Amino acid sequence: MGDFSLIGKSMKRIDTPLKATGQARFSSDLMLPRMLIGKVLRSPHAHAKILEIDISKAEKLQGVKAVITAKDTCADKWGVFRYTQDQQFLPTDKVRYVGEEVAAVAAVDEDTAIQALKLIKVEYEELPAVFDIKSALESGAPLIHQDHPGNINIHVNIDVGDVVKGFGESYCVREDTFTAPEDSYFQGEPYAVVAQYDHTGSLEIWMPNAGPHLKAKPLSNVLKIPLNKVRVRKIAIGGAFGGRSEISPADVICAFLARKSQRPVKLVYTREENSIATRQAHSMIATIKTGVNKEGRVISRDITCHMDGGAYSSTGPIAVSVPFLCMEQAYQMENVRYNGYRVFTNKPIRGMFRTHGRAFACGVDLQLDMIGQELGINPLEMRLRNARKVGEFTPTKSYVASCGMTETILKAGEKAGWNEKWGKLPPYHGIGIGCNSVQTGFPMGIRGGSQAFIKFNEEGGITVITGIVDNGQGNDNMIVQIAAEELGLGVCDVQLINADTEVTPSDPGSYSMCETFIGGNAVRLAAQDAKNKLLKIASEALKASPDELTVKDRKIYIEKSPNKSISLSKIIRIALSRNESISGEGSYWPKVDSKREWVENPSGQLSETFSFGTVITEVKVDPETGKVDVLEVTAAQDVGYALNPKVIEGQFEGGIAMGGQGGMLSEYILWYNGRVLNPDQLDYMVPLAIDMPRINNIIVETIDPNGPYGAKEAGMSIAMSAAQAYCGAICNAIGVNIKEFPLTPDKILNAIEKKVKGEQNP
Amino acid sequence: MGDFSLIGKSMKRIDTPLKATGQARFSSDLMLPRMLIGKVLRSPHAHAKILEIDISKAEKLQGVKAVITAKDTCADKWGVFRYTQDQQFLPTDKVRYVGEEVAAVAAVDEDTAIQALKLIKVEYEELPAVFDIKSALESGAPLIHQDHPGNINIHVNIDVGDVVKGFGESYCVREDTFTAPEDSYFQGEPYAVVAQYDHTGSLEIWMPNAGPHLKAKPLSNVLKIPLNKVRVRKIAIGGAFGGRSEISPADVICAFLARKSQRPVKLVYTREENSIATRQAHSMIATIKTGVNKEGRVISRDITCHMDGGAYSSTGPIAVSVPFLCMEQAYQMENVRYNGYRVFTNKPIRGMFRTHGRAFACGVDLQLDMIGQELGINPLEMRLRNARKVGEFTPTKSYVASCGMTETILKAGEKAGWNEKWGKLPPYHGIGIGCNSVQTGFPMGIRGGSQAFIKFNEEGGITVITGIVDNGQGNDNMIVQIAAEELGLGVCDVQLINADTEVTPSDPGSYSMCETFIGGNAVRLAAQDAKNKLLKIASEALKASPDELTVKDRKIYIEKSPNKSISLSKIIRIALSRNESISGEGSYWPKVDSKREWVENPSGQLSETFSFGTVITEVKVDPETGKVDVLEVTAAQDVGYALNPKVIEGQFEGGIAMGGQGGMLSEYILWYNGRVLNPDQLDYMVPLAIDMPRINNIIVETIDPNGPYGAKEAGMSIAMSAAQAYCGAICNAIGVNIKEFPLTPDKILNAIEKKVKGEQNP
Repeated sequence: MGDFSLIGKSMKRIDTPLKATGQARFSSDLMLPRMLIGKVLRSPHAHAKILEIDISKAEKLQGVKAVITAKDTCADKWGVFRYTQDQQFLPTDKVRYVGEEVAAVAAVDEDTAIQALKLIKVEYEELPAVFDIKSALESGAPLIHQDHPGNINIHVNIDVGDVVKGFGESYCVREDTFTAPEDSYFQGEPYAVVAQYDHTGSLEIWMPNAGPHLKAKPLSNVLKIPLNKVRVRKIAIGGAFGGRSEISPADVICAFLARKSQRPVKLVYTREENSIATRQAHSMIATIKTGVNKEGRVISRDITCHMDGGAYSSTGPIAVSVPFLCMEQAYQMENVRYNGYRVFTNKPIRGMFRTHGRAFACGVDLQLDMIGQELGINPLEMRLRNARKVGEFTPTKSYVASCGMTETILKAGEKAGWNEKWGKLPPYHGIGIGCNSVQTGFPMGIRGGSQAFIKFNEEGGITVITGIVDNGQGNDNMIVQIAAEELGLGVCDVQLINADTEVTPSDPGSYSMCETFIGGNAVRLAAQDAKNKLLKIASEALKASPDELTVKDRKIYIEKSPNKSISLSKIIRIALSRNESISGEGSYWPKVDSKREWVENPSGQLSETFSFGTVITEVKVDPETGKVDVLEVTAAQDVGYALNPKVIEGQFEGGIAMGGQGGMLSEYILWYNGRVLNPDQLDYMVPLAIDMPRINNIIVETIDPNGPYGAKEAGMSIAMSAAQAYCGAICNAIGVNIKEFPLTPDKILNAIEKKVKGEQNP
Repeated sequence: MGDFSLIGKSMKRIDTPLKATGQARFSSDLMLPRMLIGKVLRSPHAHAKILEIDISKAEKLQGVKAVITAKDTCADKWGVFRYTQDQQFLPTDKVRYVGEEVAAVAAVDEDTAIQALKLIKVEYEELPAVFDIKSALESGAPLIHQDHPGNINIHVNIDVGDVVKGFGESYCVREDTFTAPEDSYFQGEPYAVVAQYDHTGSLEIWMPNAGPHLKAKPLSNVLKIPLNKVRVRKIAIGGAFGGRSEISPADVICAFLARKSQRPVKLVYTREENSIATRQAHSMIATIKTGVNKEGRVISRDITCHMDGGAYSSTGPIAVSVPFLCMEQAYQMENVRYNGYRVFTNKPIRGMFRTHGRAFACGVDLQLDMIGQELGINPLEMRLRNARKVGEFTPTKSYVASCGMTETILKAGEKAGWNEKWGKLPPYHGIGIGCNSVQTGFPMGIRGGSQAFIKFNEEGGITVITGIVDNGQGNDNMIVQIAAEELGLGVCDVQLINADTEVTPSDPGSYSMCETFIGGNAVRLAAQDAKNKLLKIASEALKASPDELTVKDRKIYIEKSPNKSISLSKIIRIALSRNESISGEGSYWPKVDSKREWVENPSGQLSETFSFGTVITEVKVDPETGKVDVLEVTAAQDVGYALNPKVIEGQFEGGIAMGGQGGMLSEYILWYNGRVLNPDQLDYMVPLAIDMPRINNIIVETIDPNGPYGAKEAGMSIAMSAAQAYCGAICNAIGVNIKEFPLTPDKILNAIEKKVKGEQNP
């Protein structure tokens, strides 16, 4: 790679000081003149007909400025996809989960709003409810949506090669069923929305989001106002993890309250509301049958997976496909069949999650370990033999343009001392490995591309205008870094205007790991467009052809005679004196198969590139308490090219915290008849910094042919690999393969006890 | 002209509802968290050395967060021009007028800030002061700036042809001296600034302005921070009239207070501060000598003009030139000499004003009337004979590309019934005419051009991004109208992002009547750039060449087969499906002689085009009270092309209010030793709506070859013509030519009395 000033260097994120000093403003910090406080009335029933809602008393309460029910909203059903339109934001017919939105109020203060909620009388007729996949699928089970017989929401079917023949040709075949309960995104920032309408009927709205443009269009549809009357504004965002990609009932309710009251309204979810009324992850039952040859190479694999989707579709179609896709990207296989079902239950709505599919991914990896046990091949070797290679196609026909899967396995193994440790660790010590791969963007129709503008001031400083949002992962920094690098500027010379739908051009949104790749490319192209204009002027001034010139340190110089230079500010002034404007525009669309479907025909280029990650975890289990002590985690990922190693390491560590430390050790949602029993920070155990183990980060670079500077996604394939590696390490430590995740002390103790007693583990 | 949907139609301004309902937010409406209130300590002396400033007591007052003096600011002298750098924003050596800024405080509330001001002890040594042009020019007069002997700030000298020879060849020569005192801009919105710094040292600032980019660069210079760390933000503005084009001490003081306190600071001027510490208009003594031939055509003219500039240069160099330039544009003359002097006095600083130079312009016109009287040629005919024609050059070598001077005279005369009324009105009834011409932009170096971006949303709605500010004249509407017209959209389809230096590209600023011409052209070009991209796609879809297509009503159709059409939203979706972004960029630089100097060599193309206006006023004077009753005003202006007749009529009427009704009847500043005696709305008599006469508006269109749709400035040449016409009418009514303006009842009564007594009037 070239001789960069900023790219490839570890730099401090530009957003850190604001966040560290508390100066960053999140949606709940916003105060607008005459702003009201909104509150939502929620269903106490898991499944019930709504017979009547009486808001008359609430409306009369002093200080109440608006009360809304379904009558005040448009009753159309909404969905992320054309074929998943099943949710009314305030339902008219029935409620489908405990906590579903039924009515809302806006009042002068929170106390008044809460009091008003108590004055709303809702008459329900309770209906029988189902709370788990099995009951939902039973014949005669109560139907949650009349048009979805059997409570099947989505069925994804993939069938490549000949699975049956493949099993016939296999040397060894295993079938196991793995399960995992729901876990929570548990973003640091609870969901909060501020909305106001102006006199022209234009809506201005602030909320956590994974892309302002991603929110604006559906809001325009649901609120029945033109898109150019919806302005989703930039605000600091405290995490998304896949859960803030679609519009939320909170967005819509807040907007309707603002419209009805004709005043700004703020709606801040409590931690409990955040846990029950924003998207959370699916529970899952995955039955995996794998056949391998003598060398341990997978010949055939057949997976049936059921996911509990809760009451509505949400991003369900994606959620059903993704675990399969990650697997088929990471591992070679010729014959593969997948039947994925998303099932409706009377529980809160599930969405796409950063480490979606614990049962699936950990199941696949743990089963590989188990097969390896039978064949006498160690887990690392099993993965090496099945690892995806560059230049291959996945079973669903995605070309893999860059791939460091093997390199991550080897480097992680070396760093973790795999060969020295495997089979040689003391009792109750274990080591495990997991591999995974993720996409960088999905085919998302017309919002798939990103566009960026760059404008100059007369001193040579620039403003980058882009729709890219930063919801915590460091996108702001990435944009500034790329623009500054391309134009030979310092970070302090770049101002950033982003993520405001009225000001900034379209962008697919910061989800599905695509922003560095798609948005980063657009910013780079915009900067290059501007740079070409600068080079033209510099080339005249320095009497040298543009390709002899270098842009660096706020000046352009002849590469071979660095003292022959002209400053950027001088170039800008020359341009202005000639009545020319210097500006840059860049657009990037990922090369994906835009006809590729999520459900009916999942075949074609899914994503322009993929990242590949390996995690190795070493643990010590206390056989008396079942407590797991994580000794060391080694994370290696093919990130294409490391634009900012420090940020990437942060992403690796966050992924290990969420996928491994939380996802495999402590995080799960506890239920009682559709009620969440642990919605708060005390009972839902998100790992804290103090819980984290020692981590070795290994960045593998493969220089993706299409990524900006070769870069692609960073951190996400670590998150799931961590879960897999934690799982493998614990099972290795206790000598029992537990198939129910997460591996909490009770399950570990139980498994150890059974093993000691000689009983069969599940 | 073409068949337009919006252009040329009277449409309601988009900003009216916000302003009419009180929803528009001005700088003083802003509230920021932890915001402090700033207050300024002002000099009680007109001229005094500053010996010592003791802020220790003020700093100790509970609630005071910052006290600043010159020590806290950069002490560099600042000026609009390179050669006029004479003002420190907080002076270190001496104060030069009553009200000059000496120190400032920021405190938690206004009471505390005011109390803190009282605790600041300043020790002065009083110096002799001068308060008028004559005393300032006397030998031995106290010097206000040591490096300006004779207190001469600026001397503009223009000498074209041979004036002496011209007088020799003249049939009739007259010399008269005219005077006018200062008047006030009296913007509806008092000056207010809000400033805050963020953790990166970036300044965000809101204030009334005539162009955010016009403020940002000088602020960056004075505050010694890079330009990209200064963000001047959009806010509603209540009038500028030439007085808000440069940075004000309030801007700088507010920024320094915010920097020192590390909190947001709001500084709102009282009405009195607005009158003494923001720019106000110059007083003037103009001696005009004019020689004409038998037919009344001007052969030679020699003008010496002294203007009282107050204590500092400000926009003085422009102010000295402009009255001459307006005259030379309006009237033909072969030989002309001009000596313009701006004189320093110990009075508040004077700046460029919308109807700058009453003594000059009304003097020229009244003298034409007087010469006509001698020759037996009526005033209208005198103007016709001297009117500027299209295709001519002005004496200082500006080419006149479009000119409706003669047409405005003829049309106004016809409408006002000039021929029926001149010489035939009853006693104490009078009719008068005035003609004037103004520029549309000046050569202003690198900020002379305007740039605009247009982006589309996927429904076909657009956002226009431009640096153009609207400070009351309707620029926002003009931008939206042009963009919507070009792209076949409705006004509601257009969102506007403007006048925010960080977001919007550069623009010269909304002063010198240039925005419709320069900014309007840039917006039009940006829209055309986008339109060409739309046409390309439409042409493929409709199988027709782009020049057969029409863009209208949110669709593109084949002009000859209007039912063959494609909607804009469809085109945008086609573009997006092809991975193309539709956007537009446009830049416009006026074709002016950028080397043209204001002082040393005023020759070359001053402005790309000029507007021409004629006003005819009919009055009745009460000989008992001197009160003037304005019966009717007829205003005709060559506006090039009327983009929005309703807005233009509003500009005409505002011009008549300011130039005629206020400027010639009631508005002037009263002084006592450098103190303003009438700084408030009770004593300074700005005309109200109820004071206004019946007005006939006549729009003359000449279709300027370079203006957008042929448009140029609208309303400004009416403002000064109105003063001239009011003056002529009153003098005609009373049969005395009064040379001291404005024509207040006392002067009128005095003149009538003297005339009745047979005494000579001045």
